[in-house]
Amino acid sequence: MVKVGQQSVNMVDVAREAGVSVSAVSRALAGGKGVSERTRLRIQQLSEQLGYVVSPEASKLSSGRTGRVGLVTPTINEWFYSSVIAGVAAELTAAGIDVLLYPLNDSDERRRFFEDLPARRKVDAVINIAFPLTEEEWDRLDVMGVHAVVAGIITPGRPSVGVDDELAARHAVNHLLGLGHRRIAMISSIDPEGAHYTADVSREQGYREALSKAGIDVDEELVVPVPWGIDGGSQGMDKILTLPHLPTAIFAFSDEVAYGALQSLRRSGLSVPQNMSIIGIDDHPMAETMDLTTVHQSPFEQGVLAGRLSLNLMNGESPDQQIVCPANLVVRRSTCPPGDL
Amino acid sequence: MVKVGQQSVNMVDVAREAGVSVSAVSRALAGGKGVSERTRLRIQQLSEQLGYVVSPEASKLSSGRTGRVGLVTPTINEWFYSSVIAGVAAELTAAGIDVLLYPLNDSDERRRFFEDLPARRKVDAVINIAFPLTEEEWDRLDVMGVHAVVAGIITPGRPSVGVDDELAARHAVNHLLGLGHRRIAMISSIDPEGAHYTADVSREQGYREALSKAGIDVDEELVVPVPWGIDGGSQGMDKILTLPHLPTAIFAFSDEVAYGALQSLRRSGLSVPQNMSIIGIDDHPMAETMDLTTVHQSPFEQGVLAGRLSLNLMNGESPDQQIVCPANLVVRRSTCPPGDL
Repeated sequence: MVKVGQQSVNMVDVAREAGVSVSAVSRALAGGKGVSERTRLRIQQLSEQLGYVVSPEASKLSSGRTGRVGLVTPTINEWFYSSVIAGVAAELTAAGIDVLLYPLNDSDERRRFFEDLPARRKVDAVINIAFPLTEEEWDRLDVMGVHAVVAGIITPGRPSVGVDDELAARHAVNHLLGLGHRRIAMISSIDPEGAHYTADVSREQGYREALSKAGIDVDEELVVPVPWGIDGGSQGMDKILTLPHLPTAIFAFSDEVAYGALQSLRRSGLSVPQNMSIIGIDDHPMAETMDLTTVHQSPFEQGVLAGRLSLNLMNGESPDQQIVCPANLVVRRSTCPPGDL
Repeated sequence: MVKVGQQSVNMVDVAREAGVSVSAVSRALAGGKGVSERTRLRIQQLSEQLGYVVSPEASKLSSGRTGRVGLVTPTINEWFYSSVIAGVAAELTAAGIDVLLYPLNDSDERRRFFEDLPARRKVDAVINIAFPLTEEEWDRLDVMGVHAVVAGIITPGRPSVGVDDELAARHAVNHLLGLGHRRIAMISSIDPEGAHYTADVSREQGYREALSKAGIDVDEELVVPVPWGIDGGSQGMDKILTLPHLPTAIFAFSDEVAYGALQSLRRSGLSVPQNMSIIGIDDHPMAETMDLTTVHQSPFEQGVLAGRLSLNLMNGESPDQQIVCPANLVVRRSTCPPGDL
C-alpha cells in the first residue's frame, strides 16, 4: 500500500488504488446506489487508509444533499427552546448532520429567512421549534421540497413532536380541583407582538375545560393574560391581588410565569400554599428549588425525537407522524387544600 | 426590462442584461475586487430586479468563503451558554452569516469535530464558548486558517471576550468582607470529567486573593469544590453544614450553585441572610426572584461582541483583541452583616 500525504489524496487516487472508476468511488462514499455493499466497504476502508475525506460540497453535488438541517426558533436563550435545541443538536450531531441556527426574533429576520430559503438551498430539512408559521411560510418549505418537522408543539398534518398542552393544563387544574379549590385563576400567556402560539391557546382551553367538567363557570376576571416570563407572572399576580374576591389557587401558564407570581405573593405577604396554591407547567430546572408543584415535560427529549423524525424523513421514511410526549404531575409544596390557614 | 421567472434566471442573464462579462457579475455579487463601486451597485440592482440570487455554494467557490461560522460549546441548554449562543446568533444572522452549532459534549464528539474540521472546510471561523481546548486543538484551527474567537472567557493571545473572572470573584468576596464577615466559605466548581475550565481556577484565585489582602488565612476546609450546578451547590452546602465551626457567609461559584446552597439552607432551618449570607456571580434571570446578591455579567452581550470580533477577523481586521466586559455588584437581600440574628 502506498502511503500518501493527506493533502495530496483525491478521489482519483482512491479509484486507482481500488481499481474502480472515479464515479464508483463517488457513489460508494455517498452511501449511494449502483455499488455493491462489498465494493462500498472496500472503497470506504481504502479511503480511510489513504486518508481521503469526502469534501462535503462535492458530496452534496453528487447526492443532492447539503448534510445540514436548519433550526427555526423564536428565541434561543430561554429554557424550553435551548433544551429543544440541545436535544436536536445531540441527535443530529451524532448522525454526522450539521445544525444551522435560524433565530427569527423579528419580522425582518423572518422575511429574510423565507425569502432566501427557496433561492439558496442551504439545508435538507427544517425543524421549527414551536414557532407559529403562516400558511405562506409553510408553502415555501413545501415548494422547495425541504422536509419540515415541528418540535415542541403537536401540529396537525405535520410531522411533529410535543406534549398535549391541553391535557397538561387539565392535569394541573384537576390537581387543584382535587384538593378542593373552586375559585382558580389562570395567568395565561399572550405574545406582545400578536403571534398566535399554539400552547397559549391550548393551555387556556385545558383550563376552561377542566373547570367546565367540574361544573364551574369560568369567571373571566380570573383569566389574566400576560407576556410570557417571570416579569409577566409577577404582573399577572399583582393584578389578581387587586380583585375584591381573591382566588384560592393559581394555574400559571408555565413555571417561569409561576416564579414571577411567587415573587409577587412573597412581596404581598401572602403565604404559599396556606393562603394561595400555585401550580405551573414544565418542571423547569428551578422548580425543585422553588418547591413548585408542576406538570413535567422534557423539551430535550422532544428535541431528540424531532431530530430523529427529520433523519427519518431525509431517509424517505415516515412522512407524517405525530409523537405525543408524556406530561406528568409532580406534586411539591406549593399546593394544598384551600383555607388551610 | 424583460421579466424572467425566478427559476430560469442565472448569472448569464444578469451579465447579458448588464452588458458586462459573467466573471464581472460574479465578482460584483461576491462584493469583491476588480469591479468599480458603480458597476457593483448596478449589477446588484439588476440582479434584484431579475430575481437572481447567488447560490451560496457558487459564491463560496469564487470567494473561498463558506458564509458560515461554527460555534463550539460544551453545552447548549444552560443559561450562560444559551445566552452567549443567542448573542452570537443575533449578531451573525443580522450580517447574513449562518451559524453552525457544534456541541462537544463528550470526547468522541470532540475528536470527530477536530479530525473532520481540517479535511472538510465547513466554516470560515470558529467561536469557542468558554471551552478549554488543548494546544493541539488550537493548532488544528490555526493550520487550517480558520479564524478562532473565544466567547465567555478572556484568553491570552487569542481574540476573546469575557469578564475578568478573578476580579468578579474579588468583588463578591470584598462585599462580604465589607459587611464584616471574616469566616467566608467558597463553593467552587470542578469539572467531573477533569477538564480545566478557566473560570473555575480564576474565581477561586479571586476568592483567595481577596481574603489574603484582608489579612485572612484561607481555611482549606472552607473551600468546597462541587460539580457545577444546582445539585452541586446543594451538596456543597450540605458538606459545609457538617463543619464544627460554620462560616457566616458563602461565596458561590455562580448563581445556579447559590440556588442549590439556598435550597439546602432552607431545609436545614437556617435563615438567609440572618444566619448565613450568600452571594453568587452572574445575575441569572432567577436571581431577583431568589433575592440573591450577585455580581452581574451579560453573556448575551459577550456573544454579540464575539460575533462582531469574528466578522472583523473575516474582514481582515483586528487580529488579536481582548474585550473585557464589566462585572458589577448587585446587592439584594441574601447578604447582611454577620451575627444579625
